[in-house]
Amino acid sequence: LGGTSLLAVVTDQRGEVLGVEEERTLVEKGNPEPIIRQVASVVRRVCKKAKLKVADLEAVGIGAAGAVDPKTGIVHLAPNLGWTDVPLGHELEKALKVDVFIDNDVTVAMVGEHEQGAAKRAQSAIAIWVGTGIGGGLVLKGKLHRGGRGCAGEIGHTVMVFDGPLCGCGRRGCVEALASRTAMERDVRAAIEAGQQSVVTEIMEETGKTRMTSSVIEKALAANDAVVVEVLNKAQRILGSLVANLVNTLDPEVVVIGGGLAERLEDRFVGPIRETAYQEFIQKNACEKVRIVASKLGDRAGAVGAAFVAMSRS
Amino acid sequence: LGGTSLLAVVTDQRGEVLGVEEERTLVEKGNPEPIIRQVASVVRRVCKKAKLKVADLEAVGIGAAGAVDPKTGIVHLAPNLGWTDVPLGHELEKALKVDVFIDNDVTVAMVGEHEQGAAKRAQSAIAIWVGTGIGGGLVLKGKLHRGGRGCAGEIGHTVMVFDGPLCGCGRRGCVEALASRTAMERDVRAAIEAGQQSVVTEIMEETGKTRMTSSVIEKALAANDAVVVEVLNKAQRILGSLVANLVNTLDPEVVVIGGGLAERLEDRFVGPIRETAYQEFIQKNACEKVRIVASKLGDRAGAVGAAFVAMSRS
Repeated sequence: LGGTSLLAVVTDQRGEVLGVEEERTLVEKGNPEPIIRQVASVVRRVCKKAKLKVADLEAVGIGAAGAVDPKTGIVHLAPNLGWTDVPLGHELEKALKVDVFIDNDVTVAMVGEHEQGAAKRAQSAIAIWVGTGIGGGLVLKGKLHRGGRGCAGEIGHTVMVFDGPLCGCGRRGCVEALASRTAMERDVRAAIEAGQQSVVTEIMEETGKTRMTSSVIEKALAANDAVVVEVLNKAQRILGSLVANLVNTLDPEVVVIGGGLAERLEDRFVGPIRETAYQEFIQKNACEKVRIVASKLGDRAGAVGAAFVAMSRS
Repeated sequence: LGGTSLLAVVTDQRGEVLGVEEERTLVEKGNPEPIIRQVASVVRRVCKKAKLKVADLEAVGIGAAGAVDPKTGIVHLAPNLGWTDVPLGHELEKALKVDVFIDNDVTVAMVGEHEQGAAKRAQSAIAIWVGTGIGGGLVLKGKLHRGGRGCAGEIGHTVMVFDGPLCGCGRRGCVEALASRTAMERDVRAAIEAGQQSVVTEIMEETGKTRMTSSVIEKALAANDAVVVEVLNKAQRILGSLVANLVNTLDPEVVVIGGGLAERLEDRFVGPIRETAYQEFIQKNACEKVRIVASKLGDRAGAVGAAFVAMSRS
């Protein structure tokens, strides 16, 4: 469940996908009801596609962007949905009459990649999802790492430029304020306002986009747009240093980079991040053993992972 | 085994200390032999103190500052000792005729604090040792976390000021280059050279020190030295942000701050780090549940932890 779209899958117990449904999220600031009804309706439709009834489901798992409490099923803060303290799990259980488990969106994406994707069989793995914000997930000693208070994985809120640009969280210089798609858009707009030539405005007008989405970035790169190339390079250097910081601390087997840009640009996005990271590892021995790769499941990572989380918790 | 001093303990199987020996390390750049002989001699003497023979020992564990390979017992790089690729484990086994296990100094300090000190019974804990450099250790899911290549814990090499001061590792803006005792000394000397008044030079002359040790810093603080107060505050802000970064990512139960300054100044050193960190947690819920405390075992943390590591590996 993201601020832009909603993707649902039905899987069997091994995670094989039996049906898929996707649609745009009906965001209505301050009112969660349309989205809750929409989620319930998408669950019913994806079951029909898989020739199942909702009552046949063992459980429903949902990954929601933002600060969520897996224990209570409450979404405490989801700026992209305009939500504060929405009891999503409870409301959906009433509507669907089946157990519902809520988790953070990148937490479930990490689980998806660990069960079926780029981090399969890894004892230790880190997921970094770059989109509107930057989220993270961790697998340690072969299992999802939730932390002492259950809120591990806020990798986007790592300060990397002391007294740097203000982040949505109130700190300065978080990696989210430096290298998310939102930060890249801010930097591209600033360059344009400062008089630099860029095709971004044109592409956005032509395609009817109000935001600099991954597809806008892809088109600008195809046109060799100097502003976008420079802003992307800078973000990749920051993300490469972030990966090096994390590897220096945790020495995982694999770092999975996901989100819209990784999905669209694949190694064009991940390659330069990997190069910077390898240069900045403090222990160079066997540095290629630490795989730094794009998400394998792409936009399905979250939904497939949510199914695994629901199975493990039910 | 540190660049300044060498501290040995004999413990029983529960980690109770039966004897202690400490002396200055005989550093002779480029020649590891005097130190290897010294370590062997200290082991013999500490056994005598505990009324034991070396042959009675189950194993010997050593924590060495630097990049070490626990599997081979080789110290690959220890700038404080002037060592590269010294087969410390092998040489000591020849001398002592007992199994010797080598590990990183902060790794074993983390184990000491986890078994007997400030992180006792924690499922997840982080150790940050601030001295000549900055080292780290991690306990995750109740056990020491070594990482995929065995080199987890290089927390000092976290970039926090992009394009900041050059670090010994070749990167710029690592926390070690910003907030270690070496970095603090550099900043104090720069302030004095720039004409600021400080009692540090006087204290060093009086006490015959060539470096700005923890005891020099303690005396300067007692004299309310404005330069040292400012430099220390800056280092504490950086360290507080580092702790917040780590907690945002890993959400551990406890963060243990160790090293000379933590030992001498205790909460005067750790308190401001804790305050900054709490302000910068992305998830404020129950933030006081994350304990941020000074090492409990002090300079014995490493030696006691090395004994536990040796017992667990033998």
